Amino acid sequence: MIAHHKAYVELLDRFKHIALLESIEEVLTWDSRTYLPNCASEYRADQIALLTGMAHEKRTDPRIAQLLNELDADSINTEDISVEAVNLREWKRDYDKQVKLPKQLVEEKACTAVKAQSTWVEARKTNNFGAFKPWLKKTLDLNHQTAECLGYENELYDALLDLYEPGVLTCDVAPVLSQLRNELVPLIQSIAGSSKKPDISILERETSKSAQRNFASEVAAAIGFDFNQGRLDETAHPFCIGLGLNDTRITTRFNENYLPGALFGVIHEAGHGIYDQNLPKEHYGTPMGQYVSLGIHESQSRMWENMVGRSRSFWEYWYPKACEYFPVLKTVTLDDFYFAINEVKPSLIRVEADEVTYNMHILIRFELERAMLNGDLSAADLPGAWKEKYRKYLGIDVPNDTKGCLQDIHWSGGMIGYFPTYSLGNLNAAQLFRKAGEELGDLDDMFQAGDFSTLKNWLTEQIHSQGRRYRSGKLIEVVTHEPLSAEPLIDYLKTKYMPLYGL
Amino acid sequence: MIAHHKAYVELLDRFKHIALLESIEEVLTWDSRTYLPNCASEYRADQIALLTGMAHEKRTDPRIAQLLNELDADSINTEDISVEAVNLREWKRDYDKQVKLPKQLVEEKACTAVKAQSTWVEARKTNNFGAFKPWLKKTLDLNHQTAECLGYENELYDALLDLYEPGVLTCDVAPVLSQLRNELVPLIQSIAGSSKKPDISILERETSKSAQRNFASEVAAAIGFDFNQGRLDETAHPFCIGLGLNDTRITTRFNENYLPGALFGVIHEAGHGIYDQNLPKEHYGTPMGQYVSLGIHESQSRMWENMVGRSRSFWEYWYPKACEYFPVLKTVTLDDFYFAINEVKPSLIRVEADEVTYNMHILIRFELERAMLNGDLSAADLPGAWKEKYRKYLGIDVPNDTKGCLQDIHWSGGMIGYFPTYSLGNLNAAQLFRKAGEELGDLDDMFQAGDFSTLKNWLTEQIHSQGRRYRSGKLIEVVTHEPLSAEPLIDYLKTKYMPLYGL
Repeated sequence: MIAHHKAYVELLDRFKHIALLESIEEVLTWDSRTYLPNCASEYRADQIALLTGMAHEKRTDPRIAQLLNELDADSINTEDISVEAVNLREWKRDYDKQVKLPKQLVEEKACTAVKAQSTWVEARKTNNFGAFKPWLKKTLDLNHQTAECLGYENELYDALLDLYEPGVLTCDVAPVLSQLRNELVPLIQSIAGSSKKPDISILERETSKSAQRNFASEVAAAIGFDFNQGRLDETAHPFCIGLGLNDTRITTRFNENYLPGALFGVIHEAGHGIYDQNLPKEHYGTPMGQYVSLGIHESQSRMWENMVGRSRSFWEYWYPKACEYFPVLKTVTLDDFYFAINEVKPSLIRVEADEVTYNMHILIRFELERAMLNGDLSAADLPGAWKEKYRKYLGIDVPNDTKGCLQDIHWSGGMIGYFPTYSLGNLNAAQLFRKAGEELGDLDDMFQAGDFSTLKNWLTEQIHSQGRRYRSGKLIEVVTHEPLSAEPLIDYLKTKYMPLYGL
Repeated sequence: MIAHHKAYVELLDRFKHIALLESIEEVLTWDSRTYLPNCASEYRADQIALLTGMAHEKRTDPRIAQLLNELDADSINTEDISVEAVNLREWKRDYDKQVKLPKQLVEEKACTAVKAQSTWVEARKTNNFGAFKPWLKKTLDLNHQTAECLGYENELYDALLDLYEPGVLTCDVAPVLSQLRNELVPLIQSIAGSSKKPDISILERETSKSAQRNFASEVAAAIGFDFNQGRLDETAHPFCIGLGLNDTRITTRFNENYLPGALFGVIHEAGHGIYDQNLPKEHYGTPMGQYVSLGIHESQSRMWENMVGRSRSFWEYWYPKACEYFPVLKTVTLDDFYFAINEVKPSLIRVEADEVTYNMHILIRFELERAMLNGDLSAADLPGAWKEKYRKYLGIDVPNDTKGCLQDIHWSGGMIGYFPTYSLGNLNAAQLFRKAGEELGDLDDMFQAGDFSTLKNWLTEQIHSQGRRYRSGKLIEVVTHEPLSAEPLIDYLKTKYMPLYGL
């Protein structure tokens, strides 16, 4: 039994210790994004760098290689999905990656991320791309170095993408995004040509922050986010983060003149949170207790946000409650509300984009970061290139960088190669959601009756409880019995939006 | 030059590294008292224990003894107050203490504190002493062990008191507290016999949490608390904590039907915060950048809270502003408000006690924890003994444990021997405040004109900037040219309260 092998037990201990250390780093990260005083960011960067360095040292301890060797981790059958085989395989993969990165680079990346992020927060507030530019340059440089250290199949970008979506290559993603564009641009155009338009002014009626917070919290709890193991806080850019066992926190931003922002933001982050909270706790700190990839993570958030949260059946259940929280909605019919929250319209802000245009936002970021990384685009030219692409792909003018290239937190956090996972998330979500409907029966009937736990439990069983047992592509195949394809997403979008717009 | 000696430079590096590590622990502590989800406290305890253990290991590294030895730290002239002499002397003191404590005990204390505290929060809410009792027992046991490890002059309690107030013995504190009691009980009785009574119902008029928060924040900023290097949050038990360089956070609790609670709580914690924020930053992480003792820390908070914050001149400046924040005060005269916030009346809650009766609350806690530690009182008998003492010393009945022995956070946090430092704080504050008046001129004129920086700057120069250059008793002597005495406090209280009550 590998499980009782001394070397395996030592590895378990080591990785649980590393998880403990890294969870502390997550507390510092969460705090630095929510509540850190202005002047404290330099010292916080030192605190984070200390932990990052310590964790990196432990992750790259040659003893690990020795133990993996002793257990013959290299020769594990790739079809073996026992707990021990999964852990050993993934430890091996992580170790091989980690040892390629010098400690100094890892520490500098962590340190830079904190400083860049606090600069970004100000730069975004004041529409000052110039202030952020040197940090973007530095971030690109550090990512360039990272990719060189890790090695790559075809291009630098491959190495970075693999950090977020193990096993997926740039040349896998690029055509899928193009396919989506080819299929969706005509749909977007048809919709634009439709005379049916929702009245979205109803969503701009003033609703208090506290009512928004309370309603969103009630919804989040109802779909399965456990507030005894989590929290909701307020930040400029919403995110979800695990700070340790039984501690998963989400954030949102409130706009009293735009109800859907925080509401769907919370449902989205709660989707991430539910995944995190339902990973197998007994495996916490080991691959079997970890998420598969960002594309799988995002499938959970996008499914809850859009396929559930923007469905008509969902609102048949929630709308009466919403009208109690927000009396300004009492004069609005459910049909009008449903149409308004599903408006399709090219827009500036990714996180507020509708389901149909969303992937265009991703395509733009993917192309820009890939170009910057390859040296085809300089950091200084980013704002111009951003504006050009928005004009080209979405037909809209970007009035300033705050609503343009400064809107997302990712680059300031050092993350290049992350954006494509959002589109992978949408694709995964559509394919999983279709399968759930086939297996569970009519999901709309359930949502209408306020039953969200049937779907949530199915996701826990199929996805959450699996930890890193499979790579993302394989997991989708195991669950849906088909390889990932763009068809379910395109079909879902057409089925939903064509009738809505009378097409 | 010691400053350039290789051994000294290595010690500096080592202790700055330890400070970095310990500051991370403070972030976890702050978070666990403010925002930690219910279910996460066990894992949080593990996180904290990990850091505590690591810091303890580094603090007790034999290399430190070797370096101190190399620099002859033992033979430094006690009169030498150069930066290097102070650092070496205090490092030596700390090291000698630390090596006496086994790592396992240190970790268990840290771990127990987190669990005990989360139990206490619930126990306090539900008036359930039974739930907290086993944790109190364990805390006493761990403190007993700590004292035995450290060694003591006359009794176990000495070893614990010395942790918070270096160099002070139980037999120094006990008579001072008795002296205060002997002097103040007649004053309390005279006041009780006075026909003049404030109308405190004016303080119970409803005022919103947000107005309270905004006003208290404005006051805190005006007296010198820098919100760019700090925050204000909400907790059951108010506290102040440093989370690293330029990061000092205070907390309070709001009661919409009792204005002074949060208001003076914030001024109190801001007083602590101002001390922390004005320690010499260039010495951060070394004794020269650390506070002297809790009795000195408390002198800063109590001075701002009471001697400044409850003075008539302070309110001559602030009252018009207060009336804008709290329109319910517009029908109340300044005289009536001033009298109300200075009501003297035996009461149940320490942190809400007036200046005159306050030290009785401390005496009670001091006697009870000393008795429990010595084995003269069992944890199970605490609630009864608590009630008895309140009847005896303050003449009041304690209706339940929530308002009795469960009210304070200290014991749940593992701190025994801490309470006397509050009274030492009052004594220090009175003696320093008298001296400030002698040196700076009429403080009332300054307060009335909204000038709080003259006093704040004097405190920074005299106290904050000194770090741990002197022990508390010596510092008071250096600044005031007199040894600590109860006379300034007694004089201050009589001068303020006798006219107020027409005596």
